[in-house]
Amino acid sequence: MKPGPTVRWRCGPWDSAASDEVSPGLYYFEDLSVGQRFRSGTYAVDADQIKAFARAWDPQPFHLDEEAAARTVFGGLVASGWHTVAITMRLLVTGELRPANGILGLGVEDLRWLKPVRPGDTLRVESEIVEVRPSMSRPDHGVVKIRHTTTNQDDVPVQVLTSIHLVARRPETGAPASGDSTR
Amino acid sequence: MKPGPTVRWRCGPWDSAASDEVSPGLYYFEDLSVGQRFRSGTYAVDADQIKAFARAWDPQPFHLDEEAAARTVFGGLVASGWHTVAITMRLLVTGELRPANGILGLGVEDLRWLKPVRPGDTLRVESEIVEVRPSMSRPDHGVVKIRHTTTNQDDVPVQVLTSIHLVARRPETGAPASGDSTR
Repeated sequence: MKPGPTVRWRCGPWDSAASDEVSPGLYYFEDLSVGQRFRSGTYAVDADQIKAFARAWDPQPFHLDEEAAARTVFGGLVASGWHTVAITMRLLVTGELRPANGILGLGVEDLRWLKPVRPGDTLRVESEIVEVRPSMSRPDHGVVKIRHTTTNQDDVPVQVLTSIHLVARRPETGAPASGDSTR
Repeated sequence: MKPGPTVRWRCGPWDSAASDEVSPGLYYFEDLSVGQRFRSGTYAVDADQIKAFARAWDPQPFHLDEEAAARTVFGGLVASGWHTVAITMRLLVTGELRPANGILGLGVEDLRWLKPVRPGDTLRVESEIVEVRPSMSRPDHGVVKIRHTTTNQDDVPVQVLTSIHLVARRPETGAPASGDSTR
């Protein structure tokens, strides 16, 4: 793996994270290559959060009420899959991989919910660059495909999201260091 | 198109919907076939909602602040793509297509954000069944692929989501009407 310019891996255990904010890098398209990996902080999920998200966006019994959920295929309260996605996005925005133009998603190629997220789970995300290519329609940007794996406190993957992002190229104005942008 | 047992199409214009609740059908796997379409109510999006969702899940300038957003590629405040997804899910849960076991997503095959969602937009969803097949791992369920198209008040698609759902088969206990479940 070719490391990015300012990737900083955490050395301590992930569950010692006091917040979901980690030391970011600021990336242009030229800084990204297949195989690079980036981490996030952590996010602790509780029953009240699960119910609040569900009331707003996914009001179904298995996300709203412990007793009703116990009688469903889940056997207990579980987070909406879209709640897991939202937590994943939050962890990405506050994580190590920060494209200079922000995290701009064009779409999702694949998304799987592998295991239910339950109250008491603590989630984190690891993102791996799986494809980089120039943008045909926007010459000042590139298209980057990233596989984001969301895991729980037992390092068990609960969700895999492969999404397609628009990442700005490094501006060529000014400093002679811009020669580096042609690699 | 072979209509489902209790699909009720709205006759009036969509923007006359007073809420996002529409007359539901309750569906088992046997009731669903390729080509069936289902509608939702509508959901009006404003700037405060866009910012509130973004503060919680996608805190980036183009979703949080009009002035900062004006200086980005979007030229103004836009909803997080995940906000559009959340609204879509809400419209599905309160829409016409209600599987007997709830809307249980296994994952997403494809998701594209086609056009930004901005303050003042009113969204609705039309869902089309694109594939039905038995579940290998769960004989009492089927797997149904559905393409959900989210459009704005001008009938312009802003998002297309193709997702894979687990739908319960009709129980064969009791009434002689169960013969109908073998079709």
